Amino acid sequence: MECVILGAGGMMPMPLRLTTSVLIKHNGRMLIFDAGEGIQLALKKGALGIRTLDAVAISHLHADHVLGLPGILMFRAQCDDPGPLTIIGPKGVARFIQHTLQDLRYRLNFDITYVEYDKKNPTDVAWRWQGHALHWAPLKHSTFCLGYRLEEATRPGRFDLDAARQLGIPPGPLYGQLQSGCAVTLADGTEIQPAQVLGPSRRGRVVVFATDTRPCPALEQLMRGADLAFAEGMFTQAHQTEAIEKQHSTAAETAQQAARAGVHRLVLVHISPRYGYEDEATLKAEAAAHFANVTVGRALATFAVPLPD
Amino acid sequence: MECVILGAGGMMPMPLRLTTSVLIKHNGRMLIFDAGEGIQLALKKGALGIRTLDAVAISHLHADHVLGLPGILMFRAQCDDPGPLTIIGPKGVARFIQHTLQDLRYRLNFDITYVEYDKKNPTDVAWRWQGHALHWAPLKHSTFCLGYRLEEATRPGRFDLDAARQLGIPPGPLYGQLQSGCAVTLADGTEIQPAQVLGPSRRGRVVVFATDTRPCPALEQLMRGADLAFAEGMFTQAHQTEAIEKQHSTAAETAQQAARAGVHRLVLVHISPRYGYEDEATLKAEAAAHFANVTVGRALATFAVPLPD
Repeated sequence: MECVILGAGGMMPMPLRLTTSVLIKHNGRMLIFDAGEGIQLALKKGALGIRTLDAVAISHLHADHVLGLPGILMFRAQCDDPGPLTIIGPKGVARFIQHTLQDLRYRLNFDITYVEYDKKNPTDVAWRWQGHALHWAPLKHSTFCLGYRLEEATRPGRFDLDAARQLGIPPGPLYGQLQSGCAVTLADGTEIQPAQVLGPSRRGRVVVFATDTRPCPALEQLMRGADLAFAEGMFTQAHQTEAIEKQHSTAAETAQQAARAGVHRLVLVHISPRYGYEDEATLKAEAAAHFANVTVGRALATFAVPLPD
Repeated sequence: MECVILGAGGMMPMPLRLTTSVLIKHNGRMLIFDAGEGIQLALKKGALGIRTLDAVAISHLHADHVLGLPGILMFRAQCDDPGPLTIIGPKGVARFIQHTLQDLRYRLNFDITYVEYDKKNPTDVAWRWQGHALHWAPLKHSTFCLGYRLEEATRPGRFDLDAARQLGIPPGPLYGQLQSGCAVTLADGTEIQPAQVLGPSRRGRVVVFATDTRPCPALEQLMRGADLAFAEGMFTQAHQTEAIEKQHSTAAETAQQAARAGVHRLVLVHISPRYGYEDEATLKAEAAAHFANVTVGRALATFAVPLPD
């Protein structure tokens, strides 16, 4: 599993930073979080392809998070038979896409399934992807905004070879059946349960994408124990008042949340257009005072997410 | 008057070329032709500003010509009190913008006047801007597509100083009145008509923006005698079959039209994404075989348009 930053900026696309968007690659398939205007340029610059894109998850309907979604769809429609796509997001994302496609009379060569958050019947899991559950939860922003947590299914525990030998299980296909969680019966009629040869089940990987928001319990909960969290570092502490007014967070505030949530690695995105590359040291230092393993996101920076054990 | 290419590509935005868009600057005000996704990035890269933008004229509703228009509006809305804006284009451009703004709940801080081409009651002039008439005419494309001709008003002829002296007109304010087209009466009661001291009236400048189209009489008519014409060089002759199928033109075909129309200078835009910079020499050579004063457009290339005399 690998995560690639397509853009790390906030508010609007800039030559220095496209708007915040993160691509997750897993088993040759792709999922994108957010799509501001021009984000297809990052896919092309990084030669990341588009055909294997399974879904786009949108945090909220502010332009800098969604205005590039029609372009992503049209880019994907350049491929021969790219297969269906899922679009996940707040209520209204389907209408925006449908209007745009109708108004420009654009016919896609693939079907779209829309998964919109229903405030009246909220669910914890938006979608399932290759054994991952994509969790979503409302954040605290100036408009309805969702944070996402992509959580890999728990994996079976490690196979205990010594225990298997002691139980007299012959090496071979029975090992595989036990590893995959099935009981087996030996030649002498003894039944062996998986728990007899497997260690405790192991957690899967967790990647979080959560912007734009004030610090809030939902953010902390989404981030809980994440291997990798993309969250906002929009402002330095000098602009904290503006962060509060606009319902965003400073880099330091996000870092404090990450520390409380036991995140492994934090990547700051949604950097304000006011900051040049030279200001990123300040953002990083202010965050690092609260959470050491922090990086300021840059376009096409790639983060491997290895299995935790 | 100055023209700046914001993008010179066709079909979709690419890292090498944003989609075709041209900015006209005149007396500190601006007009933009077409706005594909991400075109606001070119304005920012070129530090061209946005507040003084008076109008955007859209050729047609294919995404690569209009998907960046919402972003242009939102970028302009970052300015304090930018004043009203006119959007000109085919029927449907207003609906596309209104839907997008509604669906994303975006409130602009300026009014928009829409001027849509009415096929049932076609007009020759879409809009007037600082003494220029913006002419429009349907081209020959796979969807309804407009070409534009920005034509400066005819200017009075040159003032003939010798004639004025011979007529006994005293130097001073009377010269100015005659130059601006008003008759004057001398101290001795003689009435002088402007034509007695002015040469033949002089034509204004003409800039043309006309893409996407097959060669057609409307294109030639729009281009007639233009000082500067931005028109498509989407394909080399090797891809002429594709140009015909997709209702586009090769560089050579456009150059032939420009030659017949007596254009002064031709700039090829809407270059296919298949061509790298190294292919531009072929596009130019194939065009130059028919029309010598031709340039292949590049982002942020600037073209001054001096008065013809």
